[in-house]
Amino acid sequence: MSYRAPIADIAFSLRHVAGLDALAADGLFPDASADTVDAILEEAGRFATDKLAPLRRVGDTAGVTFADGKVTTAPGWREAYEAWTEGGWNALAAPAELGGQGLPLLLNAACAEMWNGASLAFGLAPLLTMGAVEALTTHASETLRKTYLDKLVKGTWTGTMNLTEPQAGSDLGALRARAERREDGSYRITGTKIFITYGEHDLTDNIVHLVLARLPDAPAGTRGISLFLVPKLLVNEDGSLGERNDVACAGVERKLGIHGSPTCTMTYGDKGGATGWLIGEEHKGLACMFTMMNNARLQVGLQGVAAAEGAYQQALSYARERRQGKAPGWTGEGMSPIVEHPDVRRMLLEMRAKTVAARGLCYQVAEALDRARTGADEAARQAAQHRAALLTPVAKAFATDIANEVASLGVQVHGGAGFIEETGAAQWMRDARITAIYEGTNGIQAIDLAMRKLSLEDGAVVRRTIGELRQSLATIARTNHLSAAVLRPLASAVDALESTTEWMLHAASSRPADALASATPYLRLFAVAAGGVALAREAEAAARAQAEGAEDAAHTLRVDTARFFAGQIAAGATGLAASVMEGADALGAGFGAAA
Amino acid sequence: MSYRAPIADIAFSLRHVAGLDALAADGLFPDASADTVDAILEEAGRFATDKLAPLRRVGDTAGVTFADGKVTTAPGWREAYEAWTEGGWNALAAPAELGGQGLPLLLNAACAEMWNGASLAFGLAPLLTMGAVEALTTHASETLRKTYLDKLVKGTWTGTMNLTEPQAGSDLGALRARAERREDGSYRITGTKIFITYGEHDLTDNIVHLVLARLPDAPAGTRGISLFLVPKLLVNEDGSLGERNDVACAGVERKLGIHGSPTCTMTYGDKGGATGWLIGEEHKGLACMFTMMNNARLQVGLQGVAAAEGAYQQALSYARERRQGKAPGWTGEGMSPIVEHPDVRRMLLEMRAKTVAARGLCYQVAEALDRARTGADEAARQAAQHRAALLTPVAKAFATDIANEVASLGVQVHGGAGFIEETGAAQWMRDARITAIYEGTNGIQAIDLAMRKLSLEDGAVVRRTIGELRQSLATIARTNHLSAAVLRPLASAVDALESTTEWMLHAASSRPADALASATPYLRLFAVAAGGVALAREAEAAARAQAEGAEDAAHTLRVDTARFFAGQIAAGATGLAASVMEGADALGAGFGAAA
Repeated sequence: MSYRAPIADIAFSLRHVAGLDALAADGLFPDASADTVDAILEEAGRFATDKLAPLRRVGDTAGVTFADGKVTTAPGWREAYEAWTEGGWNALAAPAELGGQGLPLLLNAACAEMWNGASLAFGLAPLLTMGAVEALTTHASETLRKTYLDKLVKGTWTGTMNLTEPQAGSDLGALRARAERREDGSYRITGTKIFITYGEHDLTDNIVHLVLARLPDAPAGTRGISLFLVPKLLVNEDGSLGERNDVACAGVERKLGIHGSPTCTMTYGDKGGATGWLIGEEHKGLACMFTMMNNARLQVGLQGVAAAEGAYQQALSYARERRQGKAPGWTGEGMSPIVEHPDVRRMLLEMRAKTVAARGLCYQVAEALDRARTGADEAARQAAQHRAALLTPVAKAFATDIANEVASLGVQVHGGAGFIEETGAAQWMRDARITAIYEGTNGIQAIDLAMRKLSLEDGAVVRRTIGELRQSLATIARTNHLSAAVLRPLASAVDALESTTEWMLHAASSRPADALASATPYLRLFAVAAGGVALAREAEAAARAQAEGAEDAAHTLRVDTARFFAGQIAAGATGLAASVMEGADALGAGFGAAA
Repeated sequence: MSYRAPIADIAFSLRHVAGLDALAADGLFPDASADTVDAILEEAGRFATDKLAPLRRVGDTAGVTFADGKVTTAPGWREAYEAWTEGGWNALAAPAELGGQGLPLLLNAACAEMWNGASLAFGLAPLLTMGAVEALTTHASETLRKTYLDKLVKGTWTGTMNLTEPQAGSDLGALRARAERREDGSYRITGTKIFITYGEHDLTDNIVHLVLARLPDAPAGTRGISLFLVPKLLVNEDGSLGERNDVACAGVERKLGIHGSPTCTMTYGDKGGATGWLIGEEHKGLACMFTMMNNARLQVGLQGVAAAEGAYQQALSYARERRQGKAPGWTGEGMSPIVEHPDVRRMLLEMRAKTVAARGLCYQVAEALDRARTGADEAARQAAQHRAALLTPVAKAFATDIANEVASLGVQVHGGAGFIEETGAAQWMRDARITAIYEGTNGIQAIDLAMRKLSLEDGAVVRRTIGELRQSLATIARTNHLSAAVLRPLASAVDALESTTEWMLHAASSRPADALASATPYLRLFAVAAGGVALAREAEAAARAQAEGAEDAAHTLRVDTARFFAGQIAAGATGLAASVMEGADALGAGFGAAA
């Protein structure tokens, strides 16, 4: 079966976990009324399901074609992209003064989940374009903004991020691409960049490359990096397209997944130098990148949610159709649908529980980013910004880790058929794999959390967040809608998170090797506690609705999902806490000479 | 880098976990002296490293070609297979009276790990041939044995298993292939089988298919299935190859991994009926299959170990070469090799710990199978048979589950390069994926453990095994070579295993839905406890050797590995135990009408 945008589940998470209604009620997004939100979700869902989902398979099998420096996307992709931009989807969350619709990033996040659920490879193009919009909006000169922003907001042109070089991946300080000042105020850019997503393609007539490079007098390391805008085609004063810039695609990679999106090697300056313009200040390019990092990482987290959701849908559909054996208590004709077998139900519930928890975490980041943009006063915006900063690595790493786990379970549910490419289950797994790597590997996310985010406001941000988790559980407990089987493991998980947080805070300042060693299990513990509470909030709302007479099997499943997560996943929190507090001792002497 | 057979690690596990020397000392395999074993490991390792490992990549990229009913393997494969059989490797563990070398299955398991480490797709061919040898040896008539066994033992011909049909996968009771008695004692076989590994190929001149089918008067379900031998080419009385049998390959699958091995749809009887001969008794085909199941499942477990080892080697090699950033405490020139970064070391140690634990479990199954074949008396053989039966699903499921986890970590260690197919890291992940599915999905393994294996001798087998784990830990503790950081979490894990085992035993007999619901986390807990103890045995031997003056970085790594497993993996055992004891309550109401 093909992906269907899970509108009801998305809306439920937006309202009961991420507090979408409060954004409107607080007057931050007066245009985002409940009716508007529902109508947009409905329309986006239809577009994703009907127009984009069919791209997934053809993108995988046809991939992209590279010849004579040109990249051709799979059949139907250009038309779909045009229809998508014409629908105004690229501009959803952009400010009205830029031609956008000024709607919440939270709503955009929900839509992004749908585009990516339909096709991760497709969803990547707008992901990078929106990043470019953000960078230009915040840091670019008036001239650059006037020339490029309108086209990028509409999606008429796409954007790229050119960071990685062969010797500079996670460590951007090692990059070597060069920029030289020209007398006319532009810069001459030379160098080679690798792994450039949508670096070249035929979806649009122009491509706006954001390129990190060094000036001749740049300090070494990350403090000597500047950010440049380098268009594929130069733009004339009247806005028409001019001559070709000196930037070329030298090849595309053969990848494990997301075959529909070109991953390019880009060469700048083969014919003397590409023309670029500075964004922000010289040597401050990394700071420009960082301002857009939270949202870009959130977007990749949403790709994880999307892939997990898609894998879950396909596995559930298969499990309902495929019949084998007789499940306990099966009284129907012949063999049971395998969805009735306890071990298959376990896999499906695990897939669903992890997916919905990750969705809740990602949406909470989006909500915080909205409040950081539009909060009533500076203090509110700052608090929201810090909350977003804290939760971003948790959401990105957890959502993309579980995407891999869930997609692998999806293959498993299919049995032997899952290993056959035609079935399509394996594609979710192949496509999802990169999400744990790009936009900062999940190891980098854990280090970011441990070494930079925990210490925000001397630990007050994380302590506040843990207090909110505890408060949520207390509020839920008072309603008596959920059983101790849900609430007790979650309370223990929050306890475990609290004690390890204090341990990590102390370690980060006094024994960094310990904090670095424990960063990954600590992030997982954080996500398990916060994700479990998010599920409990959904479950409480569902149980409440049922108590008030709503008959909806989806509500029962929401309660079951939270129960499963609490008893089967959050139950591991105390073990994780013990692991965290081993610190560097857990890692022994290293791999010195031994094999 | 290419796979290198890890001979030293293998030998260490054979001796200190699986008790290889005791097999010789007990007089069960007088030919398997320490010198012989070392020489064989050395030679097998050289063959795997030099001759087979280069097949892995070409098998993946060239795959197999299907045209006009014929399957052509990748360049170099036929030559490698010939060299391999000429080396006598297929006959290593076959009894001397069949032309084999009569060496332990345990030694064969070590070699099998190496063939599969070099190439899972290659290793599959002998895996199935050895299964056919076992089935024929135990159940076939004198005539069949005389005609086929010698060729199969040498590997001159290969064997296949034809079980699956489109509607009959995990539930073999649903199979429909038909067999009709002929007057000459042969049978006319008709039907279609899918997912037949090496069903057709060009490695050998003949292929011996073992086919499950139903006689016209067969009872319904699994009690009406018979096993038949159906050669691709009929064999004349003098042993020469005769005419083509009515069996054909109708196509090969396009798969996620193991591209080098053909996965065939086989049709029997398109031209009136294939000629087959009964193996064992009519309607007792499944019993014949079951006798070879333990070893076949062990072999797939070994594929898991092999893939995990290969992924680990490649990731470690990359992590030593690739430089990014500066690790804490790094005093060398420029950037650190990423192996120095704590989060990378964590990934590598997790890969290694899971791999070596899985190896220990698999080798212990092989040792038990050896004692079941050759034990001094019936009681000893029976006890060993039961021990093998108990541990087989644990070893198969754990080794193949961790293979997927480890191979995915291997991609992660590579960062963006891991997603590029040329790097080779992704192939380990693609190849490993099937091992958790075939030869009984890991869900089936867990059910087998929970519903059939725990109750052996009314629970005495599993209780004995847990007692041995406890005994091992006590023995190790007395030597004072290992710290409490290793021993305490393992003791807790064994405690957790004991209490959940009693819970599962009771559930299996009185509340099967609970036992079925908890089978998967219970199996994981079992493997974590037993695998952790296996690692502790290695670590104790290594620490002892160091205390006695041996300077070997590998010994330090063995101690570190056990410590990591105990504190970072076995620490989760109590959480797993809590999850197990939720039983069916964890699974809620099911997926009835809800999406």
